[in-house]
Amino acid sequence: MRNSSRGEVDPFIVMDVMEAARLAEEAGRHIIHMEVGQPSTAAPGGARAALARAMEQDSLGYTVALGLPALRDRIARLYGEWYGVDLDPARVIVTPGSSGAFLLAFTALFDAGERVAIGAPGYPSYRQILKALSLEPVDLPTRPENRLQPVPEDFAGLDIQGLMVASPANPTGTMLDRGAMGALIDAAQQAGAAFISDEIYHGLEYEAKAVSALEITDECYVINSFSKYFSMTGWRAGWMVVPQGHVRKIERLAQNMFICASHAAQVAALAAMDCTEELQGNLDVYRRNRQMMIDGLPKAGFDSFAPPDGAFYVYADVSDLTDDSRAFAREILDEAGVAVTPGLDFDPLRGAGTLRFSYARSSADIAEGLERLERFMAQRRG
Amino acid sequence: MRNSSRGEVDPFIVMDVMEAARLAEEAGRHIIHMEVGQPSTAAPGGARAALARAMEQDSLGYTVALGLPALRDRIARLYGEWYGVDLDPARVIVTPGSSGAFLLAFTALFDAGERVAIGAPGYPSYRQILKALSLEPVDLPTRPENRLQPVPEDFAGLDIQGLMVASPANPTGTMLDRGAMGALIDAAQQAGAAFISDEIYHGLEYEAKAVSALEITDECYVINSFSKYFSMTGWRAGWMVVPQGHVRKIERLAQNMFICASHAAQVAALAAMDCTEELQGNLDVYRRNRQMMIDGLPKAGFDSFAPPDGAFYVYADVSDLTDDSRAFAREILDEAGVAVTPGLDFDPLRGAGTLRFSYARSSADIAEGLERLERFMAQRRG
Repeated sequence: MRNSSRGEVDPFIVMDVMEAARLAEEAGRHIIHMEVGQPSTAAPGGARAALARAMEQDSLGYTVALGLPALRDRIARLYGEWYGVDLDPARVIVTPGSSGAFLLAFTALFDAGERVAIGAPGYPSYRQILKALSLEPVDLPTRPENRLQPVPEDFAGLDIQGLMVASPANPTGTMLDRGAMGALIDAAQQAGAAFISDEIYHGLEYEAKAVSALEITDECYVINSFSKYFSMTGWRAGWMVVPQGHVRKIERLAQNMFICASHAAQVAALAAMDCTEELQGNLDVYRRNRQMMIDGLPKAGFDSFAPPDGAFYVYADVSDLTDDSRAFAREILDEAGVAVTPGLDFDPLRGAGTLRFSYARSSADIAEGLERLERFMAQRRG
Repeated sequence: MRNSSRGEVDPFIVMDVMEAARLAEEAGRHIIHMEVGQPSTAAPGGARAALARAMEQDSLGYTVALGLPALRDRIARLYGEWYGVDLDPARVIVTPGSSGAFLLAFTALFDAGERVAIGAPGYPSYRQILKALSLEPVDLPTRPENRLQPVPEDFAGLDIQGLMVASPANPTGTMLDRGAMGALIDAAQQAGAAFISDEIYHGLEYEAKAVSALEITDECYVINSFSKYFSMTGWRAGWMVVPQGHVRKIERLAQNMFICASHAAQVAALAAMDCTEELQGNLDVYRRNRQMMIDGLPKAGFDSFAPPDGAFYVYADVSDLTDDSRAFAREILDEAGVAVTPGLDFDPLRGAGTLRFSYARSSADIAEGLERLERFMAQRRG
């Protein structure tokens, strides 16, 4: 049977790590999971209670394509609470996770063959979704002195129709401050490129508040999700904010491509937005874990990384230790019993010399993982 | 801000009908809903109970991209129960509704610019999703003597890379029997076109069992969903069966495009598959409603339609009454208080002379709707 060429996207290397970790556990070993990009916590109790109630009272059929009006209103209100931005709820689109938002944004903005710039390292699915939609991802190799975030000179003179940034970023956790974000927005507008801001890790920030592109301009797409701060990965609910003039177009696309985001997830998400106490409790754990990582990783010999501003990752340069991060990650799993992600998922070019460590799990797990890493690296040095 | 051309898909006309109906209700009128394509029933009680339990015990994070193994196993078993087909669970992919399956299938099978044939009338989103993915939908105008299903001569000599069929079909409810399905599969294979079978209305059939393309060939994509027979529209869970050699490719696409289908929906769906008694109860209602429609619509003057084999729609030729189905539907809403869907959504060419009546609601609603239609049409004739 026939196949398309655009469907031949790269595999997620982290999936091989996860499978290897699963097999090790099946064989009776105890593994510390620093490879996964999701909280181990469930959706907040209030969210689950709201859905339990709704299941008794409502048939939970399709919602309108743009999402439950109450949820769109509440999301708009969040922009006031978090950023002091007065946002019209009509510009908020509820999506099946940020994944659904990427599909909608790329389809609404770009025609087949067009080129979209993304920072490297970056979330691997940007590249793969672009390819699957017959678009051309343009990797911008970022520099350590820019804390691995793109700057305007990285795409000066390039023929691009879009620029996508993430702050806090996966895998680095570094952020763009207001000046850096503003400079990128200006440069993208001058290049005639659509500006897309992935803000999925907002709310998970440790030193300063993350800046939303909406604080600077209305002429952008902003993508966010209930997966990370709101601890609802598996529910598949996210959102997107678009310029007023794009709402009708997105509505038609969403009607056809998704019909709607999961009604149950929307009900839970609406309630999650008022579970501040529980969510701040999760954040306290990440904050503690982050400090343990910043202190503990250098002791193990992983000392080349930028302290993460947000998210729950540390992205370390290990090029002095290996030129094959995949084999190195395998060695760490086999010898130390710690699952970590090789950088190749995030940066096909330079990721052979990097690893991503996630600290989204419990503090006890992080402590144990750091001890194992320290022991393993001490033995490795001999 | 820039826009793509592929994102300029057509609006759903039925959405305008639904909005007009909502406004009428807001103004205090009572409206009978024969426009909507979904059950009014909730997910089966057993499905909701299973999710309520899971929310207490499980963090419901991401599932693997292809779906919960237990759900894939159970779906494979359904093919034994319903069709006597022995299906390897490894070929089953759980998707975010059949919508997600369309996105995956079209991306895996076709490159930008390729042409996919679909029957007209047909589900409008086929056409729009194809456009959004830079593919070219090729309408095959079907004939009444073929009960508005495509036959091989409809695409003989056409340059197509794919053929998509639906049985039972939306909007007609007509089915392809084994011979008709086999002839289409043969002709598609001879034309080098991938064969995709949309089987979303399976389980909702009244005279004979619907035939799955998997009874005839493994070299096809079969798409189904928990939305209709399993009464779970708003949950966004569906599935797809693909040839063994396509599984890895689809897995990579699904990892990137969706991460996974809603975990909560998957838990509910698994339990729904054993709620046979409740689901057969829903089916009894549709069967009764169908007979009321077959008897009642001709009394009102809508006598030109093929009795539906399955689904919950009647698609009537009203070209003797109007050449503007949109205006006619509006008239019926305003005068009779019954919301119906103009055929233009399903057949841009000939739909100006057709209407779709849905009988997915309660029998009391259907009885009242038919009375109103009869009264309205009697007045209209004067």
